[in-house]
Amino acid sequence: MTPYEVKGKVDYSRLLEQFGVQPVTPDLLARIRKPHRLLRTGYFFAHRDFDKILDYYDEHGTFAVVSGRGPSEHMHLAHLLLYMFNLYLQQEFNAYVFVPFSDDEKFFFKDQLELGDVRRYSVENALDMIALGFDPSKTEFFFDTAHMNPKMYSMAVEMSRKVNFSTVRAVYGFAPETNIGLLFYPALQAMHILYPEVERSLPVVVPIAIDQDPHVRVSRDVAAKMGLFKPATLESKFMKGLSGEAKMSASEQETSIFTTDKPEAAAVKVMNAFTGGRATVEEQKVLGGIPEVCPVYEYQHLFFFDDAKSEKLYKDCTGGKILCGECKGNLARYVKSFLAEHQKRREEARHKLDMFIMKH
Amino acid sequence: MTPYEVKGKVDYSRLLEQFGVQPVTPDLLARIRKPHRLLRTGYFFAHRDFDKILDYYDEHGTFAVVSGRGPSEHMHLAHLLLYMFNLYLQQEFNAYVFVPFSDDEKFFFKDQLELGDVRRYSVENALDMIALGFDPSKTEFFFDTAHMNPKMYSMAVEMSRKVNFSTVRAVYGFAPETNIGLLFYPALQAMHILYPEVERSLPVVVPIAIDQDPHVRVSRDVAAKMGLFKPATLESKFMKGLSGEAKMSASEQETSIFTTDKPEAAAVKVMNAFTGGRATVEEQKVLGGIPEVCPVYEYQHLFFFDDAKSEKLYKDCTGGKILCGECKGNLARYVKSFLAEHQKRREEARHKLDMFIMKH
Repeated sequence: MTPYEVKGKVDYSRLLEQFGVQPVTPDLLARIRKPHRLLRTGYFFAHRDFDKILDYYDEHGTFAVVSGRGPSEHMHLAHLLLYMFNLYLQQEFNAYVFVPFSDDEKFFFKDQLELGDVRRYSVENALDMIALGFDPSKTEFFFDTAHMNPKMYSMAVEMSRKVNFSTVRAVYGFAPETNIGLLFYPALQAMHILYPEVERSLPVVVPIAIDQDPHVRVSRDVAAKMGLFKPATLESKFMKGLSGEAKMSASEQETSIFTTDKPEAAAVKVMNAFTGGRATVEEQKVLGGIPEVCPVYEYQHLFFFDDAKSEKLYKDCTGGKILCGECKGNLARYVKSFLAEHQKRREEARHKLDMFIMKH
Repeated sequence: MTPYEVKGKVDYSRLLEQFGVQPVTPDLLARIRKPHRLLRTGYFFAHRDFDKILDYYDEHGTFAVVSGRGPSEHMHLAHLLLYMFNLYLQQEFNAYVFVPFSDDEKFFFKDQLELGDVRRYSVENALDMIALGFDPSKTEFFFDTAHMNPKMYSMAVEMSRKVNFSTVRAVYGFAPETNIGLLFYPALQAMHILYPEVERSLPVVVPIAIDQDPHVRVSRDVAAKMGLFKPATLESKFMKGLSGEAKMSASEQETSIFTTDKPEAAAVKVMNAFTGGRATVEEQKVLGGIPEVCPVYEYQHLFFFDDAKSEKLYKDCTGGKILCGECKGNLARYVKSFLAEHQKRREEARHKLDMFIMKH
């Protein structure tokens, strides 16, 4: 597994050990007045130094969240889930949220993309975030190629001297054919992640899917070399794709629900989803379904339900009381209604975009 | 020899062959109304595609010159000589002159430099250029870390996708320990060199010392991949240091004359110079001196003399008519008087700097 590829089944407890990250424990959650469902249910299951962020919060009543977006496509629901969590951090902890759009990285990484493409997706993705309800006085967007300025560039320049080829080769698996843009990108990422500390003196937490941990480790090394607070992380599992694969991927159009999908089309994707059902109705009524492997359960659980509803569905499924057709029909309705409402808000967001762009 | 190191004696005819560049021939010079002394005397002895630049000039009456400066120190006379030549190109060919200051590269390359240092030297070096008399309506300066903007950064991003690690490793001799800033720099250099063509549709010639040829070759490859005119070059020999070494180097303070040296101190450096003299006065009167190895001859020849004076000194030296003490005394006077005048002009240049900075 590299930051650029996640395939197959994922053993999360092994990752915990392999990456040397801390588990999110009941003790940690007890320090939070209203822990988010994604924390309580173990979706964010690991962290680095988030306890130190809470220490800072206890004293200062705020911290910074950095949550970058690689704009190679429209956002899908797993992406949106992350920004829903960021919004919670902003609202619950009075957090400043910085969103760098690494259009440059996506351009370096995908030969078929032109700068016009990644810039267009930056705007489209930003609309999804604004639609969620971020507070423009505490949220800043920065599109690398569209907004680069001396302050941000100089920060990347300073950080790039702290990272050498050996390191990026080891962390990212770069090869001789790798273009020099991609080789430089870890410096830009470190700049993104450390910007709130350098410019606003706020310690940073980076909520990420765990496959992005190596990125943050490079930035933590840079921070240490510069005498800065090492950015903390909250690390999540992956949200399944509709075909049941480990991680919803924007490159697999048919198994991801995009925020811009027509609601009816998204409903069709749901109805075609893989489920945790059994071979026959009879078998399922006796043995029950398997929600652990089921994206249809997961979407409802993570995205649409509170604890009580989620627990009820789990019991009904494992008890054989609800069958997959009905369950998919429910999710399809939730998705349709969510998308209709979200798409209205994201169009309204177009005229608000400028309020969120970093002012030099 | 790499772009970062020139030591020992240099065999220029071997370099011509090794780099695959064209010699500056009498036929080429015959196309120029008033060839500069540095062209006529063989200091600029090689080129790539400069004939094509002359073709363009014949039709359009202009072209672009890109002449970057790595601001790690004050400028010395060999640096200044290059910009005197650039000024000639501007005046003789109505050329647009673009001067990118690669403060970032110097920062990547020299661990002991801070950003504040390279930015200060950028300004100091710019003053030297302005003092020479460049026309602000046809000259643009760009300091990488102080002036980076979306247009220039995006250009570098586009170009970085055309260059991979193998190439920069082969051309620059980069190692695993090389920081990722330096790995990325060739993309910035390509952006610098190709900017006049991309933004002003002007073909570019880059006057350089021949050790910088690999830099330009990378940019030529990028240009070819982007369907642009491949930047031409005019390639010079090195100006000797005062100790007689092949290339005056700013890192050897005592053997270089800096534009900011106190005139008296510069005169002392001249009086301590290595010369092409013989072991004894008697021997020299019989055998004559050896101007070919003598920096004291070279400075007068390249910097202060016209053809007639230069020829006379050559004859007087090889004929044993002038001895090294007298000759050094002459050069010391020229240097003192030049520096006094230049330093006055470069102080006057301070309030003109803003006229030369790229406006977005």
